[in-house]
Amino acid sequence: MRKLTVDQPPAYPVYLGRGLLTQARQDAPPGPKALLYDRAVEGYALKLAEALQIPHRMGVEGGEEAKKLECYGQVLSWLAQQGLPRDGMLYVVGGGTLTDLGGFVASSYLRGIACVSFPTTTLAMVDASVGGKTGINLPEGKNLVGSFYPPKAVYLDLESLSTLPPPLFREGLVEAFKHGIIAADEALMRLESLHPEWPGLEEYLERAVSVKIRVVEADPYEKGERRKLNLGHTLGHALEAATRHTLSHGAAVAYGLLYAALLGKAHGGADLTVSVEGLLRWLEPPPPPPLSWDELWPYMARDKKKLGDSLHWVIPLKPGHLVVQPVAEEVLRWVYAEFLERVSGRP
Amino acid sequence: MRKLTVDQPPAYPVYLGRGLLTQARQDAPPGPKALLYDRAVEGYALKLAEALQIPHRMGVEGGEEAKKLECYGQVLSWLAQQGLPRDGMLYVVGGGTLTDLGGFVASSYLRGIACVSFPTTTLAMVDASVGGKTGINLPEGKNLVGSFYPPKAVYLDLESLSTLPPPLFREGLVEAFKHGIIAADEALMRLESLHPEWPGLEEYLERAVSVKIRVVEADPYEKGERRKLNLGHTLGHALEAATRHTLSHGAAVAYGLLYAALLGKAHGGADLTVSVEGLLRWLEPPPPPPLSWDELWPYMARDKKKLGDSLHWVIPLKPGHLVVQPVAEEVLRWVYAEFLERVSGRP
Repeated sequence: MRKLTVDQPPAYPVYLGRGLLTQARQDAPPGPKALLYDRAVEGYALKLAEALQIPHRMGVEGGEEAKKLECYGQVLSWLAQQGLPRDGMLYVVGGGTLTDLGGFVASSYLRGIACVSFPTTTLAMVDASVGGKTGINLPEGKNLVGSFYPPKAVYLDLESLSTLPPPLFREGLVEAFKHGIIAADEALMRLESLHPEWPGLEEYLERAVSVKIRVVEADPYEKGERRKLNLGHTLGHALEAATRHTLSHGAAVAYGLLYAALLGKAHGGADLTVSVEGLLRWLEPPPPPPLSWDELWPYMARDKKKLGDSLHWVIPLKPGHLVVQPVAEEVLRWVYAEFLERVSGRP
Repeated sequence: MRKLTVDQPPAYPVYLGRGLLTQARQDAPPGPKALLYDRAVEGYALKLAEALQIPHRMGVEGGEEAKKLECYGQVLSWLAQQGLPRDGMLYVVGGGTLTDLGGFVASSYLRGIACVSFPTTTLAMVDASVGGKTGINLPEGKNLVGSFYPPKAVYLDLESLSTLPPPLFREGLVEAFKHGIIAADEALMRLESLHPEWPGLEEYLERAVSVKIRVVEADPYEKGERRKLNLGHTLGHALEAATRHTLSHGAAVAYGLLYAALLGKAHGGADLTVSVEGLLRWLEPPPPPPLSWDELWPYMARDKKKLGDSLHWVIPLKPGHLVVQPVAEEVLRWVYAEFLERVSGRP
């Protein structure tokens, strides 16, 4: 087992390893607890509930449905009906949608109760697990409501990945690849061995999470440095939205990384397209929607990141060297044409 | 104009005076703004909107309806539709339900935007304006969801009280009377002159708000000292809930203060019942519901303050000397019998 620390503040530990229920039981404070879990990992969640003797358990369907205001209200009402007190603790087990929802519930129920998180997808482990961002969606857009609310502890239990479907396992590691570009950590960009049972997975995840921890510590409230984590996400979010999320987040971000790599090249940077095309071959995502720039643009203008400002792009000039800036529309269009050529396989 | 400071932290100013729009205009930062207001004070709110040139305005009906999850969602969606950015500012004008709602919206929209509050009732000025508590209701109870989120500034504009119905004007000052007991400030317990046009009102409100500021500064997250502000509220909230809020908050708390005074006497404290009965004569509330202790009790057990603990009572032993502790049920019943006798006018 490895133990990382996020000094956000307040500092909290991130445990990483295979089989962490014993550790979680040792760490558990006395006092009332409730468990919110993703039905997709019910088996793992109930093992936790048993190990920690948590009587109050609520399972919800993961995915964006879980992040609707209605579901937020249902979980809050459930906690109130169970009478979970102010000094109670909410355990959250599931993918990123569950940990986002659970974190916001914990931050607002009785004006804030303690929360412990067990991310159970590679995406949630590498991305959402660290940083204290919580959030739910509005009909107007994703993650428009939420809080910065660090958990008391995070457990990244590789055991909980055993039931994760292989495409989802791969998808989440797109964010790890992205962290490789941000931190110039080439080990994160080598994907061939990645598999739930690979002995190197624990170290790989530690490297990936460590990048996120360093960025978050430098910028806890997303005022500057943290915006680099948005690499690949501006186009990525637009592709997700334009396909009504039939294109997965990982696939959309992988395409977004290719677009970002092309933007970097257009700005005189190193050619990262070869690496990203390697990522795409490994991931084998469905093709992106055949949208023109004019069709895609409205989905970007609605992005939260844009609010209050012209749209900023994270441009990788080389691994470890990224700039965040607006880009002229002509350049964006021209690079998008090149992007479409690459992904359609035509020259 | 007077200027108080709440050192919560972060510190924020509380302006108090008659006609504060000029001050608010001077303080207003550049950048996008939105205005959420109570329709009951639309005239005042629109003057503010004009003075500060706020284009985005949303009026809602005040009262507990405003604190439902549905209304919370509507305000959030409205902000998103207006495209209010992260560095935008939300102005909130209205009674306590509006400032509670608006504060929670501001704390959670885009994970937190700046907020300025204009409480327009005596209750909101004396009670909710300071302390940074925000909140909405669940079907399971009031204020079960919210945050601690200090505003950037608070404006207590006596001009906005001019349209407040006299019963509401008096009601809010029950909290000021309560602050008089907490801080042993007798001036706050002299009610005869209180009137919206009374020249001494500004000083009176300053004294009342100052008590709250001192308590909040000593205990920003309601861990101890701040629980004294709950004086009169345990029975008060139960009376409100049992009458489905046909008994107003001020009237319910006034009755709660009488009950607390009787509890104090029963614990060997000074006799505060004469003062509180003076308050009741001045307030002229409708009679409390003729409920037995057994009928009332379930409404107290559901109170948020109880969660995680046996019910604690704030007991005034004399002005300035309060204890917070559980009370044996026999004592509570016996004092309630005395309470019913007093309020029914029977010996």
